[in-house]
Amino acid sequence: MEPGEEIGLRVDQTLTQDATGTLVMQELEALGLDRVRTQVSVQYVDHNLLQADERNAEDHVFLRSAARRFGLWYSKPGNGVSHPTHMQRFGVPGRTLAGSDSHTCAAGSLGMLAVGVGGLEVALAMAGRPLHLRMPHIWGVRLTGELPPWVSAKDVILELLRRHGVQGGVDRILEYHGPGLAGLTAMDRHVIANMGAELGATTTVFPADEAVRDFLRAEGRERDFTEITAGPGAGYDLEEEIDLSALEPLIARPTSPGNVVPVREAAGEPVSQCVVGSSANPGLRDFAITAAMVKGRQTAPGVSFDVNPTSREILQDLTRMGATFDLIAAGARIHQAGCLGCIGMGQAPAAGRNSLRTFPRNFPGRSGTEEDAVWLCSPETAAASALTGAVTDPRDWAAEAGMEPPDLALPERASVNTAALEPPPPQEEAVRVELERGPNISALPGFGPLPATLEGPVLLKAGDNVSTDEISPAGAKALPYRSNIPRLAEFTFTRLDPEYPRRAAELGAAHFVVGGDNYGQGSSREHAAITPRHLGLRVVAARSFARIHWQNLANFGVLALEFDDPADWERIDPGDRLRLEHLDAALAPDAPPVLQLRNTTKGEEYAVHHRLSPRQRATVLAGGVIPRIAAEAEPPARE
Amino acid sequence: MEPGEEIGLRVDQTLTQDATGTLVMQELEALGLDRVRTQVSVQYVDHNLLQADERNAEDHVFLRSAARRFGLWYSKPGNGVSHPTHMQRFGVPGRTLAGSDSHTCAAGSLGMLAVGVGGLEVALAMAGRPLHLRMPHIWGVRLTGELPPWVSAKDVILELLRRHGVQGGVDRILEYHGPGLAGLTAMDRHVIANMGAELGATTTVFPADEAVRDFLRAEGRERDFTEITAGPGAGYDLEEEIDLSALEPLIARPTSPGNVVPVREAAGEPVSQCVVGSSANPGLRDFAITAAMVKGRQTAPGVSFDVNPTSREILQDLTRMGATFDLIAAGARIHQAGCLGCIGMGQAPAAGRNSLRTFPRNFPGRSGTEEDAVWLCSPETAAASALTGAVTDPRDWAAEAGMEPPDLALPERASVNTAALEPPPPQEEAVRVELERGPNISALPGFGPLPATLEGPVLLKAGDNVSTDEISPAGAKALPYRSNIPRLAEFTFTRLDPEYPRRAAELGAAHFVVGGDNYGQGSSREHAAITPRHLGLRVVAARSFARIHWQNLANFGVLALEFDDPADWERIDPGDRLRLEHLDAALAPDAPPVLQLRNTTKGEEYAVHHRLSPRQRATVLAGGVIPRIAAEAEPPARE
Repeated sequence: MEPGEEIGLRVDQTLTQDATGTLVMQELEALGLDRVRTQVSVQYVDHNLLQADERNAEDHVFLRSAARRFGLWYSKPGNGVSHPTHMQRFGVPGRTLAGSDSHTCAAGSLGMLAVGVGGLEVALAMAGRPLHLRMPHIWGVRLTGELPPWVSAKDVILELLRRHGVQGGVDRILEYHGPGLAGLTAMDRHVIANMGAELGATTTVFPADEAVRDFLRAEGRERDFTEITAGPGAGYDLEEEIDLSALEPLIARPTSPGNVVPVREAAGEPVSQCVVGSSANPGLRDFAITAAMVKGRQTAPGVSFDVNPTSREILQDLTRMGATFDLIAAGARIHQAGCLGCIGMGQAPAAGRNSLRTFPRNFPGRSGTEEDAVWLCSPETAAASALTGAVTDPRDWAAEAGMEPPDLALPERASVNTAALEPPPPQEEAVRVELERGPNISALPGFGPLPATLEGPVLLKAGDNVSTDEISPAGAKALPYRSNIPRLAEFTFTRLDPEYPRRAAELGAAHFVVGGDNYGQGSSREHAAITPRHLGLRVVAARSFARIHWQNLANFGVLALEFDDPADWERIDPGDRLRLEHLDAALAPDAPPVLQLRNTTKGEEYAVHHRLSPRQRATVLAGGVIPRIAAEAEPPARE
Repeated sequence: MEPGEEIGLRVDQTLTQDATGTLVMQELEALGLDRVRTQVSVQYVDHNLLQADERNAEDHVFLRSAARRFGLWYSKPGNGVSHPTHMQRFGVPGRTLAGSDSHTCAAGSLGMLAVGVGGLEVALAMAGRPLHLRMPHIWGVRLTGELPPWVSAKDVILELLRRHGVQGGVDRILEYHGPGLAGLTAMDRHVIANMGAELGATTTVFPADEAVRDFLRAEGRERDFTEITAGPGAGYDLEEEIDLSALEPLIARPTSPGNVVPVREAAGEPVSQCVVGSSANPGLRDFAITAAMVKGRQTAPGVSFDVNPTSREILQDLTRMGATFDLIAAGARIHQAGCLGCIGMGQAPAAGRNSLRTFPRNFPGRSGTEEDAVWLCSPETAAASALTGAVTDPRDWAAEAGMEPPDLALPERASVNTAALEPPPPQEEAVRVELERGPNISALPGFGPLPATLEGPVLLKAGDNVSTDEISPAGAKALPYRSNIPRLAEFTFTRLDPEYPRRAAELGAAHFVVGGDNYGQGSSREHAAITPRHLGLRVVAARSFARIHWQNLANFGVLALEFDDPADWERIDPGDRLRLEHLDAALAPDAPPVLQLRNTTKGEEYAVHHRLSPRQRATVLAGGVIPRIAAEAEPPARE
């Protein structure tokens, strides 16, 4: 297994959530699957919980029926965010997990190999096919020392983002090791593994050691524990060291998880909202430390103090230990368990007013507010700032308040509650289940093959680090259409250019998009490939691509090309007409991966290359995975 | 004081909420008010809590600044629904309360005279002007006996709705008396008083007796208690009797609070959602009985079990007594304290699937789902149905489950918490407060006087019992525009006729609307008068009007006319041109209240009358209250 080569992984478990899962269920249908072939597949409902109209509730009905039909577990709305819930109920050291959510990597906290990918990859994994990845470099991160008081796991991953930025982990797997691990619980490791996604990493792995055994014991699943640690001669492609004892509270300024500075450098900035929760800080501990800090105190008058519990189990434990009471008494708005504000489903802040969140992402507009000012920090920093009404280093607050680091007295046993997790019915019952499809749930649009010659205008030119939130936005307006491609397509790229969908519709033919570095970072949503493809996008030429989106583009028949000379990005203007010729030959299995991109408006040519495997070349030529599989099954190619 | 005569009340207290309050604050500004002249005025934030984008949060910032500027208390988002919160913290027997929310009448539970009116009436009350009402008939409702097990206060008011329908209380004040009162706590009476609004009543009054003293003592406010009971010779204009011991669990079928049947008649209908909460069942007791019933059990797999706590204080007490834990363990989605689903801010059900709610209203579409199927019931019925997954009489469920009516062991003292209630600053500080107006907050549009001759087409013909939800919808799409009249106007009447706003805009001139009986029932929102007025509505001719909307029409210069012969309603078709002449003379203070309405399309004339007081005639002629007051202050009339 050489870094850069395409590899195929056997997938033991899958997870899907509702914002991506409605499409995955439609893909299972299009693939003609009868029953999943994985050990465990779980459909969570955690994103679309606001239910501003009937569409969310109808998606839930559809997902439940599809889970029953295809043999998945179904986790009801309100049962919790997929990542911590999956870790609590299903995670097993050494197993592989594919998830249609970019934070699936959080399960690396248990010693799983867990990869966030596009929904179609997950559908194929459920159908028993391998998960294809380019073999990443292994990045060993050695932890030493112990975290100081008021510094926690979030500050560890923020430190890596401070050092390396949002592209620092691209084509890498982070493997944590070293004596510093001993001080980190499995849920602390979840925080760190989760936000490996923000480094652009393929995934993150922690060893399955005593901390993992403790976690599984607390969840009543010690029988699922297997010790997995690095062998004595293990080496890494790249090495890094973090002395935990030298860390201090950190915060990411708006509008990138990479804009990290020490909290003390931002201290005093006024704050209008503080939100605790999300898959980046999901643990009981994260809520309990917040509760301990605000107990008997009051959050500042101008601050909205929002608490997003991550799972029903965690809210139950938090309530049992009295911490929910302390949060409410201090002014918290307690929300139902789910992703909520993290993906812009509610709790949108006022424009330009600082919102501090324990979330993983602060891409512009992701909160639901176009001109937002979202900061990412630890629960300790969020709680201290909620109390003072300004960005506050929790160490300074503790000194002022005369507070010692509290003993949180977390329960040894979690209050396990599986009632909202519906197991799949036996096959004889499953085959009789009808899919309950509401009027908002479209079928997957069919896509045609790639023509040998492509010419069209550049309908949009993007800069560096464009996220899938900017390509296909989340938020309360767009998310209800995640199961309706034609309607969702009207939101495509509108954060960057409100006129893009209209121009694409008027053109009614193939077009190009030009992107900068790390094009398509962030969320795994394959909608960011499907909706522009639905509007006619056939080629993205960029300086570089983020992993999941790059795969999604191939899966839906969009050709992703990289400039040999990154400076060529500057030579292309929006509206220029680009041309590619002999694509059938250029994408043949053995052809060299280089092409010439002609700018017929300017009379220039740019050397570009692709990184598609032979399998992916065939996919792009066929128009996507589903047409390719259909063609394989039925030799005379359709369309 | 003769029934039907206009009377003026001195107003001691006011309440406004955010969905109506942003406009009230703009009205205070338009009136040039410096500081409120009431004893207590409170601005609550309970409706627009979802924050799907920046507009809700910006409304909250605006309302806080306006409360500080004009001398109101400010109740933060998450502090609770106005009615129970006001009762807990501010209600005083014998005082008058005007509120820009139709359920303001709930405070009658404490022996207050509490009236829901349009926002402008509340603004005028804050400015020290009297509140004008038509003197209602007093309807004595004598209660005898004691409620049987599993039957509660909600069933009392549903019984009155079963007997009399949604127009049964029009132009009446309900006054409850009799030996049956002894078994009803102040919070039980809140349930009954609150939904007096659904009978169309002007308000509801209970005596201030020992139950009220107990309530105020539990809230730490026994000093605010004054005994107020009916004198020995008290009589009523109308009389009614309810034997509480003869009641059974009742339920209102979709889509009117008046469609009441015994639960046993609907038993077995499948249920997809059960929601507990709202100002109609706000008390700790209502959540505690629900928790006791679901404790140690699981709600049905296909049911979403939603809990809307009504105030922070109640959620705090519920959590302290362990009931929050029991609700979560049984599968509840716990939402932040507020109105939420009751006004269509979230929790919208799937189309056509039954949703059982302890709410006051189930007008079509109010839930956020156009084709909704919302039922209204007690917490006992909602809990039993959540457990079984079908409409269930709680008596049958209890017999099956072997459960005796539980001892709820409610705390004797509420956990009073005033931290989220910000008092008004002293005047020297208030005058320096700047209104913080976000881009979504418009100024009030100016309206011109009524011309002497009016001719125009009938742009819409409505049937009976059209609610203000159908005139100006609530819900997550429209509510964020409550402070932006031009934008909100695009939603006017769209539940009845999606093309109305477009036709009105194309016409660009005065037009008429024709209505049936009880036109404008439901919510007090003055937006239902302002937005059609903004689109050119000058006259509504109806069979009869609901009280608050009738007042709001006059306040914003729309002439409300009633047919002498209700059968004339049938003679008019949409599109017919109607004409009124000599309106200046017809609305002179001493003119007889009769007019001729000409149908120039059909060549017919209809005898119509109005019920405007001399004050209201002047108001309508001037184009509304604000132009009238401006004209009084500045003798040469403007515009």
